[in-house]
Amino acid sequence: MPGGYIPRMRLADSFRSERFGAVRIHELQRVIELDSGLSAAAGSRIVPADALRAVESQMVIVVPCMNETRSVIEGVLSGIPHDCLIVLVSNSDRAPVDRYESEAQTVEQFCRLAGRSAITVHQRDPGVAGAFKAAGMPELIDDDGLVRAGKGEAMLIGMALAATTGRRYIGYVDADNYVPGSVHEYCKVYAAGLYLAESPYSMVRISWHSKPKLRDNRLFFSRKGRSSQITNEWLNRFLAEYSGFGTEVIATGNAGEHAMTLDLGLKLRLAGGFAVEPYEYMDLFEQFGGVLESTNADVMANSVPVLQIETRNPHFHDNKGEEHVQGMRMQALNVLYHSPVTLPAVKQAILEFMIEQGALGPGQEPPRERTYPPVGTLDLDLLYDALDAEALSFRQPDGLASTGLKPAPPIDRAAIPRRAA
Amino acid sequence: MPGGYIPRMRLADSFRSERFGAVRIHELQRVIELDSGLSAAAGSRIVPADALRAVESQMVIVVPCMNETRSVIEGVLSGIPHDCLIVLVSNSDRAPVDRYESEAQTVEQFCRLAGRSAITVHQRDPGVAGAFKAAGMPELIDDDGLVRAGKGEAMLIGMALAATTGRRYIGYVDADNYVPGSVHEYCKVYAAGLYLAESPYSMVRISWHSKPKLRDNRLFFSRKGRSSQITNEWLNRFLAEYSGFGTEVIATGNAGEHAMTLDLGLKLRLAGGFAVEPYEYMDLFEQFGGVLESTNADVMANSVPVLQIETRNPHFHDNKGEEHVQGMRMQALNVLYHSPVTLPAVKQAILEFMIEQGALGPGQEPPRERTYPPVGTLDLDLLYDALDAEALSFRQPDGLASTGLKPAPPIDRAAIPRRAA
Repeated sequence: MPGGYIPRMRLADSFRSERFGAVRIHELQRVIELDSGLSAAAGSRIVPADALRAVESQMVIVVPCMNETRSVIEGVLSGIPHDCLIVLVSNSDRAPVDRYESEAQTVEQFCRLAGRSAITVHQRDPGVAGAFKAAGMPELIDDDGLVRAGKGEAMLIGMALAATTGRRYIGYVDADNYVPGSVHEYCKVYAAGLYLAESPYSMVRISWHSKPKLRDNRLFFSRKGRSSQITNEWLNRFLAEYSGFGTEVIATGNAGEHAMTLDLGLKLRLAGGFAVEPYEYMDLFEQFGGVLESTNADVMANSVPVLQIETRNPHFHDNKGEEHVQGMRMQALNVLYHSPVTLPAVKQAILEFMIEQGALGPGQEPPRERTYPPVGTLDLDLLYDALDAEALSFRQPDGLASTGLKPAPPIDRAAIPRRAA
Repeated sequence: MPGGYIPRMRLADSFRSERFGAVRIHELQRVIELDSGLSAAAGSRIVPADALRAVESQMVIVVPCMNETRSVIEGVLSGIPHDCLIVLVSNSDRAPVDRYESEAQTVEQFCRLAGRSAITVHQRDPGVAGAFKAAGMPELIDDDGLVRAGKGEAMLIGMALAATTGRRYIGYVDADNYVPGSVHEYCKVYAAGLYLAESPYSMVRISWHSKPKLRDNRLFFSRKGRSSQITNEWLNRFLAEYSGFGTEVIATGNAGEHAMTLDLGLKLRLAGGFAVEPYEYMDLFEQFGGVLESTNADVMANSVPVLQIETRNPHFHDNKGEEHVQGMRMQALNVLYHSPVTLPAVKQAILEFMIEQGALGPGQEPPRERTYPPVGTLDLDLLYDALDAEALSFRQPDGLASTGLKPAPPIDRAAIPRRAA
């Protein structure tokens, strides 16, 4: 094969971006071909397979999981490219039936079949709480002495585990996805985007092509998610208030599917629960927006590209109901309202909107969402030792161990990166 | 990159197969990873990317299409690997709105964006009928002087066009597919299976993992299609009557998604309408089963492997309604009933079943399905010249023509293979 590599994903060019300090938000780009050839064509860029593979072999895919069926989980795993390391963070029921045990078995069996390794852990394992406390993040623990049950907290655990592996990239994929091919596309898009971004501090966020929904016993392919629409609108209004120009550049405020360099991820302050995804934007604006003084001279000297990519596959998952959506929507507005970089006019408009929506009574303030210190402040050595010693749910299935081939444990104790100063 | 290639798809091993003359039907194999690594693992086989690519660059993907929306078609196209040649055979309405024009534009635009080429044609174009008549297949023409409107006939047109390109493989992908990632997986599975089959006369048939259906306003993931279940049951009964052993080996009797070498395809007699897919099995049994005398010494000296592969993605398409399904089911039984190789006991049981189902009155015989001579008997030179001259719907968009790069027309007039003797 000439050149020894196979070019893979074709993305439409992104010609425009909006800057906010060091943060550079790129307009939505489309995936043109899932598997492209060598041939050039106007208006598109090809990311070669060796570039994709180089990123994948440095990427951890974190799968937050709550009470999904074995077959759905198995499908999601099958879509994650081989060289990515799988980290499953479960918040599933452990009684009356221990669903986590069944999930861990599913992962272990998949690893054996596919000859790969993974990490699984349960969010509400007392040993996990102990480890994070010991490593320096007591904020994560609730009154029961366990890690809080939110999605943001699961993502934080996943990021900390990713950091112990010494890999360079992290991506998130929700477990409630019925289409393995879309999981596959997400991961490929992460790799393509992180390669194209060309900055040690970059992020890729996914906008799915469409979302099939049931309406009157027929399928309807909705282009926009219910909460995304509102979150994006307000994030764009945030930007417009600064620039004086209306914008629609942000299309991925609630993107559950997103990836970033760990160099960036370890600096981010994650929010708890469903505030986590929109808060990533706000934290970028707060830390790297140039409005507040930044403690990250290195980041400010680089730039923080945020690539937004529209995938080809529909995002086809379980319907979590209206309550969940209303919750997500309001959590996004809460973080926007309380951000020190949100301008007063936008704050006022948010208040009015929330009252109008019935989410707030007159005179009430939006609640504050919980946010955590950057994962980079954790003592990873201590975290790993405590997990290894105390967290009974902490597993590292190694599908190569039984083959007689060289085993590939996901975490090398001796190589855990030292805490950033 | 060591070795200069990237291994790609991991399939479970198939340990068992059933023989019927030269036909060797392999037990269903599962896709384990959509994108696998180098590492070996027990019980699975990896098909390297350069092997996949070598097959893809020799493969034509035929998309039979009837009144699908632009966005669905565009999604299907985006999932077809770059090196495969796309052939769209449309039977869409041309009035009051000319839907074919819109489809042809969609294909043309996609080709431009992706820098690739394609062929599109309308099944009911009078010029197409004229060309097939001239090339030696008047059987295809109905009383209106047009090619009959069935799916089998669309597939036959696609196969004839594939043959003019000189490529070696043909695969079919239905246009009514909402998941581009599943189209992508089908094509990769075709390539992997045709590579593994190691015979110039081989076929790969797909069994989708599950099929999402609406039931009481919720989604239900059915493992088996309604008509597939019955078709497979009777095909297996056909085999069991010969061997004396019950079997469930056939799992893909109605597989719309399937591929084969053109060396095999050009020898097959295709059936009209929805009888086409189950009849492929029956024609293999008739021509290469060793029961009737075979005129194909070369095929009999080789073998005809039929690989059946279960994909990871759900098959998510439009619901065509109960009438369509009942029609498909009965067409399969019609071909089985009338086959000269079906043993009398099975014929009798089919009759009783059809009467019991209300598909036949007592004393009635199942209707005969229409079957056509092999595409290999056509004069392809004549076919091409007549299409080129007379078929106004016949298009060959070339996405490289406008780039200043070397254009790549799908069909090279001078290289059209000569008719087999």
